[in-house]
Amino acid sequence: MSESSLLNQLVESLRRLPGIGPKSAQRMAFHLLERDRDAGRQLAQVMAAAMERIGRCERCRTLTEHVRCHLCASERRDPRLLCIVEQPSDIVAIEQATHYEGLYFVLGGRLSPLDGIGPEELGLDRLEARFKEPDLGEAILAISPTVEGLATAHYIADLARGSQLRLSRIAHGVPLGGELEFVDGSTLAHAFAGRQGL
Amino acid sequence: MSESSLLNQLVESLRRLPGIGPKSAQRMAFHLLERDRDAGRQLAQVMAAAMERIGRCERCRTLTEHVRCHLCASERRDPRLLCIVEQPSDIVAIEQATHYEGLYFVLGGRLSPLDGIGPEELGLDRLEARFKEPDLGEAILAISPTVEGLATAHYIADLARGSQLRLSRIAHGVPLGGELEFVDGSTLAHAFAGRQGL
Repeated sequence: MSESSLLNQLVESLRRLPGIGPKSAQRMAFHLLERDRDAGRQLAQVMAAAMERIGRCERCRTLTEHVRCHLCASERRDPRLLCIVEQPSDIVAIEQATHYEGLYFVLGGRLSPLDGIGPEELGLDRLEARFKEPDLGEAILAISPTVEGLATAHYIADLARGSQLRLSRIAHGVPLGGELEFVDGSTLAHAFAGRQGL
Repeated sequence: MSESSLLNQLVESLRRLPGIGPKSAQRMAFHLLERDRDAGRQLAQVMAAAMERIGRCERCRTLTEHVRCHLCASERRDPRLLCIVEQPSDIVAIEQATHYEGLYFVLGGRLSPLDGIGPEELGLDRLEARFKEPDLGEAILAISPTVEGLATAHYIADLARGSQLRLSRIAHGVPLGGELEFVDGSTLAHAFAGRQGL
């Protein structure tokens, strides 16, 4: 294939998708061109619209093409509960796995001063304002238990101090179905220290 | 995620790519939206152009956005050699792995009367016309050794009969690095029958 051909450009563009190597990108390009141009046209159209129109929910900061996402706009969600997550994808995971019926707040990352990610970048001023809303009864931290995640959780706990709010975090420990010998040491130590009465 | 959201549409469109399941499609969508909108915009643009403008080379039937592909248009390729393949992707594989310097002809499939794929669908009339070109010295069949592939090869051999053309096919047998015990029976039988003197 000559370097500048449109086919090559298509393969190169597909390679920028996460987890796609040169072979897969080539297979995708040939598949679309030879067997499913409709899928290619549709993907091009939806992709262009999505990149252009999807922004952040004004209330919870998740990805949406509306001013407010469908969860914040819903009247069936419980406004007394607020779950704080790092990424929009965490919302999908929680919605699929749990029966949580409250609202969300998306940080968009973890505090990391060295990378220039401070409280402002995570919208913590807006979160603090929400902590003061009278409706809110409990805030649940669902942040990854990494060093930066724990620092972020501490910072948020400080914001909530002095309010009537109940602050909790999801449990960390040995995953269900995980065999003890394959669990990393710090998870096991954490699970041990956090043991609960039976 | 509500069913009709643009984000959902993006995930669904990405799922139509070969080998992409729901989890990967979601990961791709979030990655592009949160970290690399440029890649998304570029993919949308190149994809739309490719689906619109890429057609078939008038001479060899491979995929190209030009009237003639860069191989057929090249003066450095040997016009005495013609390699007959099933798919455009086979050309990429042969170009990468071999030092073949001749031209190609893409069938676009194998003879399969039950699926409505006859000689016309494979462009065999055009191939027959090329067999009569005085320049051509050898035609090399690089078709998969399946039942339909072998039937296609036979049909093409009939087309070449009576001409001065030398017709060959690439060797079939045990793959390099393949251990005998893991090679399927018919390949092994084929390799045995086609043994060569040392």
